[in-house]
Amino acid sequence: MTRHENISGIDAQRARAAFDAALASQRPEFEHFFLARLLGLSFAYGDADCVVEFEVQDFMFNPQGTLHGGIIATVMDISMGHLLKRMDGTGTTLEMKTQYLKPARHGVLRCRGEFIKRGKSISYLRSTLTDMDGDVVAFATSTWKRLG
Amino acid sequence: MTRHENISGIDAQRARAAFDAALASQRPEFEHFFLARLLGLSFAYGDADCVVEFEVQDFMFNPQGTLHGGIIATVMDISMGHLLKRMDGTGTTLEMKTQYLKPARHGVLRCRGEFIKRGKSISYLRSTLTDMDGDVVAFATSTWKRLG
Amino acid sequence: MTRHENISGIDAQRARAAFDAALASQRPEFEHFFLARLLGLSFAYGDADCVVEFEVQDFMFNPQGTLHGGIIATVMDISMGHLLKRMDGTGTTLEMKTQYLKPARHGVLRCRGEFIKRGKSISYLRSTLTDMDGDVVAFATSTWKRLG
Amino acid sequence: MTRHENISGIDAQRARAAFDAALASQRPEFEHFFLARLLGLSFAYGDADCVVEFEVQDFMFNPQGTLHGGIIATVMDISMGHLLKRMDGTGTTLEMKTQYLKPARHGVLRCRGEFIKRGKSISYLRSTLTDMDGDVVAFATSTWKRLG
Repeated sequence: MTRHENISGIDAQRARAAFDAALASQRPEFEHFFLARLLGLSFAYGDADCVVEFEVQDFMFNPQGTLHGGIIATVMDISMGHLLKRMDGTGTTLEMKTQYLKPARHGVLRCRGEFIKRGKSISYLRSTLTDMDGDVVAFATSTWKRLG
Repeated sequence: MTRHENISGIDAQRARAAFDAALASQRPEFEHFFLARLLGLSFAYGDADCVVEFEVQDFMFNPQGTLHGGIIATVMDISMGHLLKRMDGTGTTLEMKTQYLKPARHGVLRCRGEFIKRGKSISYLRSTLTDMDGDVVAFATSTWKRLG
Repeated sequence: MTRHENISGIDAQRARAAFDAALASQRPEFEHFFLARLLGLSFAYGDADCVVEFEVQDFMFNPQGTLHGGIIATVMDISMGHLLKRMDGTGTTLEMKTQYLKPARHGVLRCRGEFIKRGKSISYLRSTLTDMDGDVVAFATSTWKRLG
Repeated sequence: MTRHENISGIDAQRARAAFDAALASQRPEFEHFFLARLLGLSFAYGDADCVVEFEVQDFMFNPQGTLHGGIIATVMDISMGHLLKRMDGTGTTLEMKTQYLKPARHGVLRCRGEFIKRGKSISYLRSTLTDMDGDVVAFATSTWKRLG
């Protein structure tokens, strides 16, 4: 990273590597769509949860130099949508609320999506984002309508 | 766009153009940070609102081929955070709820951030995202703590 | 009001009058069910809103001596549910979020329920509670599923 | 209960007994304020939770004959506010979101308030309301500002 790039804010080389890898591997499917690839998300499933992990990178920052709340909301939304997809098929988010508890600046974050209630038509989910210290970074709840 | 790229999901050329332009123009400041540049956001301010506009592109899609809810939340968050910054200085989002009303697939979207209440310590904001037909795509409310 | 009743917290005579009037006039229907009567709600409808008014009384207080947030949520829920009932038939609240902006201690409050979006299956509503100074006491959004 | 009272909706005798008992025992303090007494709330505290129990009664119903969402919100708010009071002193609710999962018609409900995060200035709490079958009736999250 050159001095100029440092002044510019983000590590251009790492951002470009993430972008190129995402473009090369993306396809319009769960787990593999471009945004999931750009954020470097990995997916694992338990009996009743979906765990998404990713490494914080500076191209995901807000102007204050911490992980942008919109990126947090994106990953939490994905953790819930992928759990619903795996268990019950595709759904659409009617609404989602995210509470922001602790700023994240680096390291691997773990996001666990779980059901509050699995319904036939309407399902309620929640997601917890934790950092490597085990602290909760964000907590989200959402309401989904099942499709198809 | 080649047939192969079509199968792959997104228009690689447009995504790359957006990425390169973002990287070239980003700096760690309001309006200019990387995510705002990647999404191609433009900013305008009224007496008591912040209007953010951007064009939907397929690299912003969910696996169903519509604008990802996380991108919507990101832009709405930005519209409110930039209004607060302009009026009262930097703040931090305590929480935000987004309701998703209509899928968006293309065109220019307009996002208007407004105050519900400007407080000394705690401020309450809302944001409305509309498409070119004037339909509401999403509605969000949030609670902010002012800093500094 | 006797000295003893003053120490006890609420104006027992007014509370009893509200209770008796509610019991005498209640029936299990919109506008007339017991809780609506106990709170002394009046209802008016515009083309696309429902306005509910009521007078703050001390039996509705929290331990700090202001209108309890749960009573606020109840009235706002009612303003939205009655609008939906009037326009589209009965619905059920999937979720509701209320932001509390200003404490209320006395006077008549006005609560206006409106649509964010009228849907065939899912509808999105909001409600604004204002005091006699025109200040916003609370703002709520909710998501409803239409029934029958 | 006479036939006439049945037609009128609620069991007037039980409602009156609840009202009289509330009026006789209420004082403007946590656990003892009028609304808590009217709903017949009992309070128990663990190391990090507050459990509120109460019996559903028909004077708490909506026009459809199930426990009103506003009463649910009230009890959940109380479970969180009382936990915060016990642990950290009085706070004020900035916002609260409640998701409604299952209607409740009778029996004893149990509401558990817990911290998502205990903060110095801002605290985040959640509450879970369950019925006698162990099913979740409602789930709520809230954001509080500590006072004093």
